[in-house]
Amino acid sequence: MIIILKSGSSEEDIQHVADRITQLGLTPHISRGEFRTIIGAIGEEGAALPEQLEQIAGVEKVMPIMRPYKLASREFNPDDTVLDIRGVKVGGEHCAVIAGPCSVENRELLFDVARQVKAAGASILRGGAFKPRTSPYSFQGLGKQGLEYLAQARAEFDMPIITEVMDPRDVELMADYTDIYQVGARNMQNYNLLLEVGQTKKPVFLKRGMAAPINELLMSAEYVMSRGNHQVIVCERGIRTFETQTRFTLDISAVPVIRANSHLPVFVDPSHAAGQRELVADLALAGMAAGAHGVMVEVHTNPEQALSDGPQSMLPSSFRRLMERLRQIAELSGRRLN
Amino acid sequence: MIIILKSGSSEEDIQHVADRITQLGLTPHISRGEFRTIIGAIGEEGAALPEQLEQIAGVEKVMPIMRPYKLASREFNPDDTVLDIRGVKVGGEHCAVIAGPCSVENRELLFDVARQVKAAGASILRGGAFKPRTSPYSFQGLGKQGLEYLAQARAEFDMPIITEVMDPRDVELMADYTDIYQVGARNMQNYNLLLEVGQTKKPVFLKRGMAAPINELLMSAEYVMSRGNHQVIVCERGIRTFETQTRFTLDISAVPVIRANSHLPVFVDPSHAAGQRELVADLALAGMAAGAHGVMVEVHTNPEQALSDGPQSMLPSSFRRLMERLRQIAELSGRRLN
Amino acid sequence: MIIILKSGSSEEDIQHVADRITQLGLTPHISRGEFRTIIGAIGEEGAALPEQLEQIAGVEKVMPIMRPYKLASREFNPDDTVLDIRGVKVGGEHCAVIAGPCSVENRELLFDVARQVKAAGASILRGGAFKPRTSPYSFQGLGKQGLEYLAQARAEFDMPIITEVMDPRDVELMADYTDIYQVGARNMQNYNLLLEVGQTKKPVFLKRGMAAPINELLMSAEYVMSRGNHQVIVCERGIRTFETQTRFTLDISAVPVIRANSHLPVFVDPSHAAGQRELVADLALAGMAAGAHGVMVEVHTNPEQALSDGPQSMLPSSFRRLMERLRQIAELSGRRLN
Amino acid sequence: MIIILKSGSSEEDIQHVADRITQLGLTPHISRGEFRTIIGAIGEEGAALPEQLEQIAGVEKVMPIMRPYKLASREFNPDDTVLDIRGVKVGGEHCAVIAGPCSVENRELLFDVARQVKAAGASILRGGAFKPRTSPYSFQGLGKQGLEYLAQARAEFDMPIITEVMDPRDVELMADYTDIYQVGARNMQNYNLLLEVGQTKKPVFLKRGMAAPINELLMSAEYVMSRGNHQVIVCERGIRTFETQTRFTLDISAVPVIRANSHLPVFVDPSHAAGQRELVADLALAGMAAGAHGVMVEVHTNPEQALSDGPQSMLPSSFRRLMERLRQIAELSGRRLN
Repeated sequence: MIIILKSGSSEEDIQHVADRITQLGLTPHISRGEFRTIIGAIGEEGAALPEQLEQIAGVEKVMPIMRPYKLASREFNPDDTVLDIRGVKVGGEHCAVIAGPCSVENRELLFDVARQVKAAGASILRGGAFKPRTSPYSFQGLGKQGLEYLAQARAEFDMPIITEVMDPRDVELMADYTDIYQVGARNMQNYNLLLEVGQTKKPVFLKRGMAAPINELLMSAEYVMSRGNHQVIVCERGIRTFETQTRFTLDISAVPVIRANSHLPVFVDPSHAAGQRELVADLALAGMAAGAHGVMVEVHTNPEQALSDGPQSMLPSSFRRLMERLRQIAELSGRRLN
Repeated sequence: MIIILKSGSSEEDIQHVADRITQLGLTPHISRGEFRTIIGAIGEEGAALPEQLEQIAGVEKVMPIMRPYKLASREFNPDDTVLDIRGVKVGGEHCAVIAGPCSVENRELLFDVARQVKAAGASILRGGAFKPRTSPYSFQGLGKQGLEYLAQARAEFDMPIITEVMDPRDVELMADYTDIYQVGARNMQNYNLLLEVGQTKKPVFLKRGMAAPINELLMSAEYVMSRGNHQVIVCERGIRTFETQTRFTLDISAVPVIRANSHLPVFVDPSHAAGQRELVADLALAGMAAGAHGVMVEVHTNPEQALSDGPQSMLPSSFRRLMERLRQIAELSGRRLN
Repeated sequence: MIIILKSGSSEEDIQHVADRITQLGLTPHISRGEFRTIIGAIGEEGAALPEQLEQIAGVEKVMPIMRPYKLASREFNPDDTVLDIRGVKVGGEHCAVIAGPCSVENRELLFDVARQVKAAGASILRGGAFKPRTSPYSFQGLGKQGLEYLAQARAEFDMPIITEVMDPRDVELMADYTDIYQVGARNMQNYNLLLEVGQTKKPVFLKRGMAAPINELLMSAEYVMSRGNHQVIVCERGIRTFETQTRFTLDISAVPVIRANSHLPVFVDPSHAAGQRELVADLALAGMAAGAHGVMVEVHTNPEQALSDGPQSMLPSSFRRLMERLRQIAELSGRRLN
Repeated sequence: MIIILKSGSSEEDIQHVADRITQLGLTPHISRGEFRTIIGAIGEEGAALPEQLEQIAGVEKVMPIMRPYKLASREFNPDDTVLDIRGVKVGGEHCAVIAGPCSVENRELLFDVARQVKAAGASILRGGAFKPRTSPYSFQGLGKQGLEYLAQARAEFDMPIITEVMDPRDVELMADYTDIYQVGARNMQNYNLLLEVGQTKKPVFLKRGMAAPINELLMSAEYVMSRGNHQVIVCERGIRTFETQTRFTLDISAVPVIRANSHLPVFVDPSHAAGQRELVADLALAGMAAGAHGVMVEVHTNPEQALSDGPQSMLPSSFRRLMERLRQIAELSGRRLN
């Protein structure tokens, strides 16, 4: 931890800071510069430490030199984490495509889409039973009935399923149905929810909040991992910027940045980022080319009458063409698409 | 609702869209322009409608002309909502200052700060018992014990109290203690939490998410109100931008924009926006000058050893001076500070 | 153009707006809705029109239905523009890689880098002679001497060259040297500069400003084209967001969005977006996979001692590997790398 | 300067960095931590230094401890700069309001507005003769004729005038007319323009770019000052964010941040930030309450037919009321409005 003192600090000020650093259990190394004094505080960097140091009188700025997350860091686990989700491997050289409708609207639609994405090569089936909607008057999902349809689709098509959890009270119920807990962007810092899925033994698919720096996404992964569940996939799904031609701005750089800093698998969700189906394929390809371990794509057989996210859902025919190109891109870099 | 068709739409395309609009229960008014055809869809604009229209084949863009929220809108209630919180009026001409420590660290600190902010003129006491922290390893609050100290402080100093709720499972428990439920920025779109506090009879203090457009803040207020609880205060607390000299960017324009569009009281939280105490007073004054109904400020008697938010907590002495200036600014525009 | 009137507009208000629309040479089509009246204004949509309409008393909002740019639009020219720059084709199926040092530091470095990027397959040589630097105390480029070295390198390696123009006064001088005028992000709305290069007959490589919506980038292209020079390449180079792990956020979606809306070739500059060489290859690949017509990459033989942009400059060896992979990605989608 | 080495650096790596620091004329102080080694580089911090250090092999990050600007910094000049512009004092305790039409459309309008803003108490007259417009087809200003009308208005109403300069070739011509050179947001990093006005003896009113961190605004001020012209006023006019209800987001925090870091006067431009006249007064008041030395406001007698910025121009009557309230706010904090 590096502590920069306010300019014009007296010897007494410097001593005060050094004493406080010692009280906090670290060893201060003082460097007196021409204009500023800086103190290196050597020792265990607890998560609370930067703030504790920052509030010492006379301190201008504190610069941590360690990452704020540990379990999620590349240092903690130099090799890529590879998950095995009912036989589907994800991470390292193993790539996967998650596809399906935004919401589970009814059994027929779900099965229809599942059949087609499976045939095209998708390996995991998505579908929302509980839907976080901006408006309280929008379709909120089928709830438990939706979970049951998903479980039936899993049995029928032999694909692991993923669905979103929004409430810590639902975690236990959902354990009987889903293979992967999805935590959505709006809940990335719903800490009690993170702690709750952190106590399960199922993979957690954690989407980046639209205002979350990459560090905070990995801190949220750390929340889950801190409870013992190390099976986390993180997903870039677009951040909020000034550009309005896309719903969000897909931060493609997040893919290599996360891979450099963490051992966790990283996915890209081009559907929510773009908000319009015309862009989804190009963004999915970009994600794979940038090194993602997979993409999550919304597919619907009749987007014109979808109950949610129709405009951004691909048709099965376009999805098939996309799958082929994703496979080629993965192979160019020596990776395998499940 | 205005529907813009893709350029080069055929008569058949136009008819398809018009038919679908009719199916959705609206009346289409077609205007054929030189380059584009636009259709005005007249009728009840349900929340789901824009999306349903947008996904019709041939549609390029849909422009709603009504606000997506109703109960929260100025049209629904042309007069300012004025809340009465244990005798403290908030809204319209009534302004209030909420002050207190970030966290309830212990009884002594809480009482000490409460005494001083009360003496300076604050009318509502804040203090966190459950703390949302970016790191799972940081101090997470005293929980129920903290709530008890708050209730004791209320009795002692005769001030209504506000504290943050993070989990729908805590809403009931907290009803025995708090006067106002605070929903933090990270939970602004935790919809199940919003619905839960929407079923209580206590005011909800709803902070804007750091990536939330003003419309989404008001949609979240609508979530609470849709369950019958119309006592909502919304609070601007800084949005995420590229500027790094402040923790967040206080969007001061949100104050007049919300006042023009909604009847709900609007507050400003300069402490979380700035992230450093040196800026808090100037931002609080700006908020009041822009028309806010109040400000929420963090105050601590020993910020150097605070368990959270030390760097942005004001000292009681600075807070006293700030109170005087806030009072003067409120009075300049004919408003009263409680 | 669609005009939405303020709620509660009287018949007189509506008539006033309709009259003003007629005065401005358009035909008003009035649709009276339950809550709002909307007016479609049919006719030639001049660039000044939206603003003229917006300022009419009683108007709440104006929604243009045409793009604000014409010459740059896909409607104006349905086929991709293909430029021929001294034999290097750019646009449509023709892709190209621009590479070279950030600054022309001296003749030897420039020649050394040129030789190596040429050998690796780059087709256009970059190098800055006039450098826009955040600090007035940083290296500002060799100026005219740098241009001369560039021209010598062109002769030696038979590669067209590109260099940045910052000042309208330099346009004429530079015509004797450069094959492509680069207009940097900071000058994207330096309109007099745009008009000046719009009067030349050389291609203009226009970088997106860090706060520019895609529409404004294309409006700046329109500035150049409005003076008769239709040879414009636009380049995504990262926008300013809250994320700090990269210098800018590469808006990869801009590539397909621009291709859908404009016929102009679009490039990606991963070096300036990332600000660190470790990320450049992944972002370049993502750009090509998303459909870009090319990438611009900074390469330096001794980045440790570069006079500018050392941290983001690739080494020639990494650049060689990148070229191979870019070629493969281009070919997957049936395109050719020069 | 603090240099953080990559984790896992060997002794040889550390020595290499230390040697390079010495070569660059600084003294390295090495602190070996448990996980990382950090080196304090003590000595003169030239502007180019951070980049030179960052590109040394083995360096992960460089953290400057000095501000990158000098002449503009509070350290360079601990007292507020106070300008005297034809008798109007600006800076320190002296506040001023700049008002006038967006563009000089014709002599009559200019004189009419000038008369009214003067009567209301404005002390400086604004008006654009050269207009930067997003579209090449919009009204571009009257040019030299506009300058002449401005000079006539100055004589008639005895107010200093301010007008925008967009092109380094116009600086000399404009010296005969204007009292203050305005550099607009789009030209904040048009360095040649900055250098050119830096060679004049007239005050420069420098607007913050919409994507410019505060530090870069002050670096641009430094560009002007580095040529000898220390008469710079900086102006916050809104930054680009995701919020669309205002044209830009007025970063009110910039006011106290700039005052803490620089001695230069700081203004706020609420008209361009808001983009709609209904918000201008509240934002102007907020700016003054936050400590600005003045505001710049657009006023028009017939905004419905303005040639530019009609929607955000105030009517003279509203402006009069605003002036009164601005005066009161200034006086609350012991300042004087000219």
